[in-house]
Amino acid sequence: MASNKPRLKVGLIGTGFMGKTHVFGFAAASRVFDLPYDVVLHSVADRTDELAAVAARSLGFAKSSGDWKRLVADPEIDIIDITTPNALHKEIALAAISAGKHVYCEKPLAALVSDAREMTEAAEIAGVKTQVGFNYLCNPMMVLARDLITSGELGEIRLYRGIHAEDYMMDAASPFTFRHEAAGGGALADLGSHALATAEYLLGPIERVMGDCVTVYNRRPDGHGGFRAVEVDDVGRAFLRFANGATGSIEASWIATGRKMQHDFEIYGTKGGLLFTQERLNELHFFSMVDAAGRRGFRRIEAGPDHDPYGLFSVAPSHQLGFNDLKTIEVARFLAAIAGKWPEPFNFRAGERVQALVEAVHDSARRKAWVDIS
Amino acid sequence: MASNKPRLKVGLIGTGFMGKTHVFGFAAASRVFDLPYDVVLHSVADRTDELAAVAARSLGFAKSSGDWKRLVADPEIDIIDITTPNALHKEIALAAISAGKHVYCEKPLAALVSDAREMTEAAEIAGVKTQVGFNYLCNPMMVLARDLITSGELGEIRLYRGIHAEDYMMDAASPFTFRHEAAGGGALADLGSHALATAEYLLGPIERVMGDCVTVYNRRPDGHGGFRAVEVDDVGRAFLRFANGATGSIEASWIATGRKMQHDFEIYGTKGGLLFTQERLNELHFFSMVDAAGRRGFRRIEAGPDHDPYGLFSVAPSHQLGFNDLKTIEVARFLAAIAGKWPEPFNFRAGERVQALVEAVHDSARRKAWVDIS
Amino acid sequence: MASNKPRLKVGLIGTGFMGKTHVFGFAAASRVFDLPYDVVLHSVADRTDELAAVAARSLGFAKSSGDWKRLVADPEIDIIDITTPNALHKEIALAAISAGKHVYCEKPLAALVSDAREMTEAAEIAGVKTQVGFNYLCNPMMVLARDLITSGELGEIRLYRGIHAEDYMMDAASPFTFRHEAAGGGALADLGSHALATAEYLLGPIERVMGDCVTVYNRRPDGHGGFRAVEVDDVGRAFLRFANGATGSIEASWIATGRKMQHDFEIYGTKGGLLFTQERLNELHFFSMVDAAGRRGFRRIEAGPDHDPYGLFSVAPSHQLGFNDLKTIEVARFLAAIAGKWPEPFNFRAGERVQALVEAVHDSARRKAWVDIS
Amino acid sequence: MASNKPRLKVGLIGTGFMGKTHVFGFAAASRVFDLPYDVVLHSVADRTDELAAVAARSLGFAKSSGDWKRLVADPEIDIIDITTPNALHKEIALAAISAGKHVYCEKPLAALVSDAREMTEAAEIAGVKTQVGFNYLCNPMMVLARDLITSGELGEIRLYRGIHAEDYMMDAASPFTFRHEAAGGGALADLGSHALATAEYLLGPIERVMGDCVTVYNRRPDGHGGFRAVEVDDVGRAFLRFANGATGSIEASWIATGRKMQHDFEIYGTKGGLLFTQERLNELHFFSMVDAAGRRGFRRIEAGPDHDPYGLFSVAPSHQLGFNDLKTIEVARFLAAIAGKWPEPFNFRAGERVQALVEAVHDSARRKAWVDIS
Repeated sequence: MASNKPRLKVGLIGTGFMGKTHVFGFAAASRVFDLPYDVVLHSVADRTDELAAVAARSLGFAKSSGDWKRLVADPEIDIIDITTPNALHKEIALAAISAGKHVYCEKPLAALVSDAREMTEAAEIAGVKTQVGFNYLCNPMMVLARDLITSGELGEIRLYRGIHAEDYMMDAASPFTFRHEAAGGGALADLGSHALATAEYLLGPIERVMGDCVTVYNRRPDGHGGFRAVEVDDVGRAFLRFANGATGSIEASWIATGRKMQHDFEIYGTKGGLLFTQERLNELHFFSMVDAAGRRGFRRIEAGPDHDPYGLFSVAPSHQLGFNDLKTIEVARFLAAIAGKWPEPFNFRAGERVQALVEAVHDSARRKAWVDIS
Repeated sequence: MASNKPRLKVGLIGTGFMGKTHVFGFAAASRVFDLPYDVVLHSVADRTDELAAVAARSLGFAKSSGDWKRLVADPEIDIIDITTPNALHKEIALAAISAGKHVYCEKPLAALVSDAREMTEAAEIAGVKTQVGFNYLCNPMMVLARDLITSGELGEIRLYRGIHAEDYMMDAASPFTFRHEAAGGGALADLGSHALATAEYLLGPIERVMGDCVTVYNRRPDGHGGFRAVEVDDVGRAFLRFANGATGSIEASWIATGRKMQHDFEIYGTKGGLLFTQERLNELHFFSMVDAAGRRGFRRIEAGPDHDPYGLFSVAPSHQLGFNDLKTIEVARFLAAIAGKWPEPFNFRAGERVQALVEAVHDSARRKAWVDIS
Repeated sequence: MASNKPRLKVGLIGTGFMGKTHVFGFAAASRVFDLPYDVVLHSVADRTDELAAVAARSLGFAKSSGDWKRLVADPEIDIIDITTPNALHKEIALAAISAGKHVYCEKPLAALVSDAREMTEAAEIAGVKTQVGFNYLCNPMMVLARDLITSGELGEIRLYRGIHAEDYMMDAASPFTFRHEAAGGGALADLGSHALATAEYLLGPIERVMGDCVTVYNRRPDGHGGFRAVEVDDVGRAFLRFANGATGSIEASWIATGRKMQHDFEIYGTKGGLLFTQERLNELHFFSMVDAAGRRGFRRIEAGPDHDPYGLFSVAPSHQLGFNDLKTIEVARFLAAIAGKWPEPFNFRAGERVQALVEAVHDSARRKAWVDIS
Repeated sequence: MASNKPRLKVGLIGTGFMGKTHVFGFAAASRVFDLPYDVVLHSVADRTDELAAVAARSLGFAKSSGDWKRLVADPEIDIIDITTPNALHKEIALAAISAGKHVYCEKPLAALVSDAREMTEAAEIAGVKTQVGFNYLCNPMMVLARDLITSGELGEIRLYRGIHAEDYMMDAASPFTFRHEAAGGGALADLGSHALATAEYLLGPIERVMGDCVTVYNRRPDGHGGFRAVEVDDVGRAFLRFANGATGSIEASWIATGRKMQHDFEIYGTKGGLLFTQERLNELHFFSMVDAAGRRGFRRIEAGPDHDPYGLFSVAPSHQLGFNDLKTIEVARFLAAIAGKWPEPFNFRAGERVQALVEAVHDSARRKAWVDIS
């Protein structure tokens, strides 16, 4: 596998499903993109030496350790990739930044915006590159939506409606987990964060919010015959004011029975409209007032080589990208950012921003009042 | 056209498009339903004797007058049907009630809930039957949705999302009309009223709201080269709390470019979910946890003879009802209510209720605070 | 109901569901359209005097008779409207034509093309106007489809695919009826006739066909504990050659489980494509190569006032027409044809043509060879 | 990357887009599946040593050669993977089989069924494993469709309709290529082969066909200012008779303007129906007569962990697989077949079968007669 490209050595911390997904992303990215680096799977860390050794074998890493600090301290490693439980994100990221590593961290960056800010500032001072996993935003159809807005094809944007609804917490008998603790975040933090990130990706900064958060199931089985009090919301909603003058709303829920991946948006401007659902992630529906009267309608645009970087995955249109392909694009963007070829839009600063929006909605809901975003 | 049925004589006041639609409804209802009455188109009133005479000829009424009070005073007339501009609703309705007539009034019943209440109470004291035009609720698919809720097939209802969006005010150059005056109501009163009516029809009483109303176009051309200040909202939103414990939201807009009839709802319960859009009014999408794992999905139920009163329109399923058919059902329900065979759900009391909800949302938006519905 | 318009007096023969539908169509058409005539429901005939009298009362006819020949002989009657069982169509129509009446006949015109031709020629010689019930072709979206073809917006038409599938004969235990006799026609005659009529309405004459007809259920319960042999097809298919150079196919079935009204077509030309399904009869999907690369997609055009005569039913788009509205348009067209204002496209000649196509497909399937259409 | 698994060394012949896709599939399969082998990218062959060396570097092979025979002769190599132009398939495959290699060959296996049979028989005698690239059949939704049939949930299958339409040859100005030569195959061989393969995968053997093949563009620009005569069809259609008693049809086209990936099917049985389109490859629509009257409708089943092997790609439903994921499944199946753990359904025998069906349709179209499948 010799090439003339510089090598980037990855140290992965956390070997669960997301860890496996990241490894897949690194492997696939090198097959699909002409990356600026050769990526080397250098080391993996897990809770014990034994678990780490097993993971190294199955995931294809050369070395392993039961102590993540060994990876952070290893001068050979260039990127620390964090897929541990959320509670460990901050400590590991700060240590990695301090050691001069680039850091790739699964979302949410941290449970508190103050922690996220500390991590962001540390990275910016250290001059390392960072990335948070906003894979929905890597969809070529999402990029097309933003292009249609910035090109003026929709005119001035007036209205936005965003949703992220799933149903994996719909069962009242689902046991209490870390997700039901205050630090876990709730539906708004877990899913609404995606809706908020998409809203700002497409329309720019949100300036004010009015929140509405609801805990539907106040307690969950504790696994020992009793119950524990749930500390987070099952539903989160917000009215939005954007800096560009548009108004809108988002909604998040993890008890929307029948919905598996309803990451949707609707956008209405003075010249057109856009509809999208992640349930059909390869389609964008576009209405244009430019079309002749009597021939207007929402066009079902199917993803194809006209929509970068789709063409790297398939030479033919409508063959469809999957969720893992979006992860592959995410990895490629991070490597491009490290090489200085990409403006690094989904870095820790972006992660902190989303956390700030989530906190503002929570704060607004608690205070029953509109809250300005600083 | 002799029959043994008692006759009901209609006096129509207002001869614009809605007047024509009502006449169509009366004519069609007698062809589709086995009505309890023979309906006679007795008299029609318009602004002048001449206009009224022309309308009588084209609409098929025996008599006409340039003074609506003549119709109210005519002892032969049983029903006063009001399709005039909104500002006249109250005066005519009160006069008709006072004369002992049944009253059929287009929506909105009145611009102020206090007026609507006065009309409602007058009708209840007089013992006459009343009806407001909630034609969306006459859709067999809407009835099916409610049946699925009341039967328990959706379990306990947790979430509701309602929308009514159109785009007929999207053009900033659209001239100022009565709809842009405070009494005209705005998008929330005009379209959000439908969203609120549907929400309560399906889930029962709303107890509290938090509103968000936005005027996007602050002024409109006055038709004389200048502008007039717009007094109403172009967008209205609300968070909702239902008496049954569910929470939800509605949104209304008349500037949603590309949307012509987006009267949609999504409902999620502990056992299933429902999706509906008026854009495809003959379909209801139903998800049931009762279905086997791996075989679950939203079912596209098409309207057919299983869904009363569809079978009176067609013996075969999926032939589809249109908007005018819903009006026909609306008329038939009113006549059944007069005959005492129907619980009269869309009467003045219901019209007043919707007006109260609209006012509460407006009030909440102005005060930026949650408002209880009395 | 006095007007200056000339009056046309209708004599209806047959009082089943289709008779009721026709009466609805006459009543509705006078409310929606500015018809060239005042239509008078003059007389109705049924099998006995008593049944006819009952029908007259419920349908609103002034006179009635147990003998259809009385209506044909009545000099006051202008139109004979035939909704009897198919076997009677020819005798009644020929008598009516001979008496100088205009004739409105439900489809199929006759079981044999030779009979249909005899009826057609009699009408043309007599100079009376005729109409067969092709209500699908009255849909404004169907007219739009043809406009897009004739305007050249689709370029040269290359491909056609048409379907008409339902499932009302899917149950093997459904009893034997007249529809299962050779004269009844089978799925191809009953439903495929619609698919063939739509194909020619949109693309012009079919020149050659290759047929494939299949009887899936060879016998049906006779209602007396035994069975009768089925003489017709449950499925009919055909390859098509059009005079304009396009090729295509149609398929018809009445055992397509789950399908209630799949009257669909797909058309592909050198510049664009069209998709339609009667399941959503108010939509037409239009793809245009004129759209910019990366922004192309099938547009979902919703029926509205831009699509005549929709605007007579509703001033607002996407309120949706229903099946009965299409019947109303059909009636209005016939009256316009009688007044000489409409080119009378769905007359007996058109009915004969469809019958000829059906026979050609049957003949081809039997002979297993391509058959030219004369 | 040490593991205890046996190693399988791959020799890739052909380095175009499909070659790259295969390499992606091998890389991805080892990340997603617990494969029975460690796959080693051993050698790659291209037309010259230089091109091969470049490909080796970019694709990650250890060795390279300008002569494919070197790979076939190399005793270290276990699998020969053929992604060359179709004309070379036979020679390479026979050589590889003769050398005792397993062979993975892109479709079509060969232009003539006699060649495909020769290849198949050679492989069966040699006892090596073979695979042809039927990636559509690797979709978990396709497997679900077959499960619904074999489980009896659809009852007895009566009707089938399959389509494979794209538009990449719609432009009359597209230049003449190998695809327009008789050996290239045409729309039926290129796309209709997929439609036929899917039909037999789902319903079992086809016994008889009636074909209809049309060349719409008789000549194409030759790239030198002149034209060459096109030898293949642009459209292919067939009526089908299945051994299980069902009848149906397929259609293929590469000039269906606006269609990018219309690999669709509709299946109707005595108890239910199925609808699928590759345009939304993560969905299967299922109608069941078991559902209660008034609640029936086509269910939109979204792919999820209930549908193997989706769960290996994502733990959450509706995250969606892409086209490349189907290729990954295809590779994993081949490796499982080599290990004897999979019944090897998409081997050379299956490739030969599809070729036989294509030839039968061509033959039938030429002879204008039904043709039995041997």
